[in-house]
Amino acid sequence: MNSKKGIPLPAIRRYPSYLRRLKMYEIGGTEWISATTLAEDLGLSAILVRKDLACTGLEGRPKYGFAINPLIMAIEKSLGWDNTTDAILVGAGNLGTALMGYDGFTQYGLQIIAVFDSDPQKIGSKVHGVEILDMDKVVGFIERTKIPMAVLTVPASSAQMLGVKLCEAGIRGIWNFAPVKLKLSKDVIIQRVDLASSFAELSSRLKK
Amino acid sequence: MNSKKGIPLPAIRRYPSYLRRLKMYEIGGTEWISATTLAEDLGLSAILVRKDLACTGLEGRPKYGFAINPLIMAIEKSLGWDNTTDAILVGAGNLGTALMGYDGFTQYGLQIIAVFDSDPQKIGSKVHGVEILDMDKVVGFIERTKIPMAVLTVPASSAQMLGVKLCEAGIRGIWNFAPVKLKLSKDVIIQRVDLASSFAELSSRLKK
Repeated sequence: MNSKKGIPLPAIRRYPSYLRRLKMYEIGGTEWISATTLAEDLGLSAILVRKDLACTGLEGRPKYGFAINPLIMAIEKSLGWDNTTDAILVGAGNLGTALMGYDGFTQYGLQIIAVFDSDPQKIGSKVHGVEILDMDKVVGFIERTKIPMAVLTVPASSAQMLGVKLCEAGIRGIWNFAPVKLKLSKDVIIQRVDLASSFAELSSRLKK
Repeated sequence: MNSKKGIPLPAIRRYPSYLRRLKMYEIGGTEWISATTLAEDLGLSAILVRKDLACTGLEGRPKYGFAINPLIMAIEKSLGWDNTTDAILVGAGNLGTALMGYDGFTQYGLQIIAVFDSDPQKIGSKVHGVEILDMDKVVGFIERTKIPMAVLTVPASSAQMLGVKLCEAGIRGIWNFAPVKLKLSKDVIIQRVDLASSFAELSSRLKK
């Protein structure tokens, strides 16, 4: 039960919302919580929540439920958020700059240690305390630091070309915010945030 | 075939990538394209693309394929992107401000006509040319303008409370970037962009 391999992706996707809720209870001074209460809070079924929590390897105590602090730690461990994930941000445009300032990332254990852009006007300046480096140096940087993850926030036109570069330099995961489906080696894990598709779905449902 | 009701959501979600590709061909001076070529470009199956394009109501011409310009217009019409969708942005923090500057929105026909925030320091100033108004005025604004859509970019702690307000004021659709699952009336269409879940999935796959 405790192996990370065994936790299904839908559970992984729900874990962040459990964490947020549990942290609110913890701040409020609550020490124990039942899967039923957590399920009710989040509008989920109690059976589902119980299953998800069991995947962390932690066991609830009859009548008490789960001790909140150990549960938070167990979920963070399952997500790999107990250790920091270092990443680079590729593309210091509007979206990239915003993501740099997004407080949520710190909570997830995501730490951006360098930002790259090809605009000479931007290179050398800082975005939320991190220096913007020349895009030409990104391959060398990845090779040298063995950094595992890149957040890709470049325009559609350069995304594929840069994806290939990152990939060849040895990046292991790409969080892709560029409006393009990347075609890369199967060894690279790509997670896409597709704002255009999301908006397409909303606007088409609204106009029905 | 031409009815918007009939287009399946997965096709709707793929339409933005078709549009981007078709516009590149159009800029390059190409006039006709086959579903096969489009499919190859995007790494999709030709049968799927042919089906998706048929949903627009447009028919291809044997041996020529589709005339690109009419196809772009047909897809935009199917998405409702041929008309502008007016929306308000609720929450002028990091993410909200960034989204205001995101060029992609104009392409989708999304127009933010007012921004709301509760921070007195922000009220009255402008973000990308649009004035930030007092959050206390959001209900009156929606009632008066009958604006259909809100982009919600507030912190987790106030998202549900504001969602209820927007809902009661008569908003029809919410694009929810707040890290919270909103529980609202079934009449409101909610489309969520959940960055935490997306990152949870990526980091757990990376650490396996």
